[in-house]
Amino acid sequence: MAAAAPPPPPTPAPTPPSTVPAGSTPIGHPLFARIRLAHPSDVPHIHKLIHQMAVFERLTHLFSATEASLSSTLFTSPPFQSFTVFILEVSSKPFLVDGPILHSHHHLYPPQVQVVNLDLPIDDPEADAFRSAGGGDGVGGGEAVLAGFVLFFPNYSTFLGKPGFYVEDLFVRECYRRKGFGRMLLSAVARQAVKMGYGRVEWVVLDWNVNAIRFYEEMGAKILQEWRICRLTGEALQAYGKVYLLNKALKRLKTIGIGTNNSCDKKEQEFALKIEAKSSYLGFCKSSAMN
Amino acid sequence: MAAAAPPPPPTPAPTPPSTVPAGSTPIGHPLFARIRLAHPSDVPHIHKLIHQMAVFERLTHLFSATEASLSSTLFTSPPFQSFTVFILEVSSKPFLVDGPILHSHHHLYPPQVQVVNLDLPIDDPEADAFRSAGGGDGVGGGEAVLAGFVLFFPNYSTFLGKPGFYVEDLFVRECYRRKGFGRMLLSAVARQAVKMGYGRVEWVVLDWNVNAIRFYEEMGAKILQEWRICRLTGEALQAYGKVYLLNKALKRLKTIGIGTNNSCDKKEQEFALKIEAKSSYLGFCKSSAMN
Repeated sequence: MAAAAPPPPPTPAPTPPSTVPAGSTPIGHPLFARIRLAHPSDVPHIHKLIHQMAVFERLTHLFSATEASLSSTLFTSPPFQSFTVFILEVSSKPFLVDGPILHSHHHLYPPQVQVVNLDLPIDDPEADAFRSAGGGDGVGGGEAVLAGFVLFFPNYSTFLGKPGFYVEDLFVRECYRRKGFGRMLLSAVARQAVKMGYGRVEWVVLDWNVNAIRFYEEMGAKILQEWRICRLTGEALQAYGKVYLLNKALKRLKTIGIGTNNSCDKKEQEFALKIEAKSSYLGFCKSSAMN
Repeated sequence: MAAAAPPPPPTPAPTPPSTVPAGSTPIGHPLFARIRLAHPSDVPHIHKLIHQMAVFERLTHLFSATEASLSSTLFTSPPFQSFTVFILEVSSKPFLVDGPILHSHHHLYPPQVQVVNLDLPIDDPEADAFRSAGGGDGVGGGEAVLAGFVLFFPNYSTFLGKPGFYVEDLFVRECYRRKGFGRMLLSAVARQAVKMGYGRVEWVVLDWNVNAIRFYEEMGAKILQEWRICRLTGEALQAYGKVYLLNKALKRLKTIGIGTNNSCDKKEQEFALKIEAKSSYLGFCKSSAMN
């Protein structure tokens, strides 16, 4: 996915399980991690995380999302039916899993809490900027901060005849990387896919990011080497809208008799033919065109 | 996209416009082409088209879709909000564009009719098998046959902060290829994207299909060379569901006191730890894991 930070080399032997139930006494420096559905009040944080991702990928020139554009396009459907965001929160104190829930989709995805035992506590220089704005349960002393997110949505396989999930972005803030949180977020999407009877989870990776590729393969993913993404965007996409507008204009002209044989004005006929030619050239329908 | 048939080499000069309004007198052998939203009654035909696509791609071993699986997963949301299918119908007679509409989404996408003038009429050996089952307007003498389809759904760009469309499949039956119908279907999706204020239309192509790549580039698409698709499916995906079930079992065991310090049964404790280890190994949370 676009945001995958290069992971470290794989560890040959699995480490002992570190998962302990919330409420028990963990050893070392426990960090409580919670995955929950995003809430509209998380948008300012999500926006900042996406910007960090653009910085990380050196693609800030392509970054034009605003809090307003995110707010108006996310959260328009119930979770999992369209664009869905899981938020990763961390806290040095246990989450109050039975505390008040600020959003209404708790029943669709009860927050998933895990504990990671660290040798050293994490120094998060941006803790204040990413203090959890709500959207989840309370946590002792407002300790929780956003550490990452994953944005995904349903895709479809015609061969399987069933949906899957496409993971558009996975991002973990720098100081929380290489601690299993990326895996935790991606696993959460995979588990949700299985739970819903979906057939696939897909995402993309840069071909030179060999560490990320190895990590994804370890997670069970296959890398499809032969396929390339085709993208129609910007002016090239807008041109198709112009065809649409041209066709509308043409239709209107014909309705009022301009450009038809009924029209006696030669210039009007020429004008209509010009629009027709432009419309045809831009791809709506050409008798000699292909597939 | 998965179904792109190799198109012929590009024609250097644009051909004269062939689009004529329905109802006027076309020259040559006119073929009336209509793009409309699919209707549940089209599912048997869509299923056959997907199967033809699998045969064309020599991937029938991956084909497991049934009419029932398509029926239960398509048409669950209003058009354009989720999985959406445009049907391409052709007829040697004009469509009755003002005839009765069998489905309720006409206002969301009024059928788009165009005329293609051919030098020779098309011999369609499967015309009877693909006779239009309905879902659209009437057409003189039940002449209309399904010639192709495109299946697409919304995707999301976090950088743009807005949705786009992802084209999962585009397919035109063999005898209708190289006549502009693929372009017509893809253009219809692009126009709809512009109309909805979306930022991108994306699909995939096989890297060795140079003719298709050239065709897409001519249509304004950029081919993203560096990205690779990662796919988690089959047993590898199901394993994540097992983790989910293991965690559920573990939680239940702990609830009833098995495997905790309160439990005095050593074997029960060992069993719970084993589940915990398996669960952790399969990726839910490892303290030494990565990104």
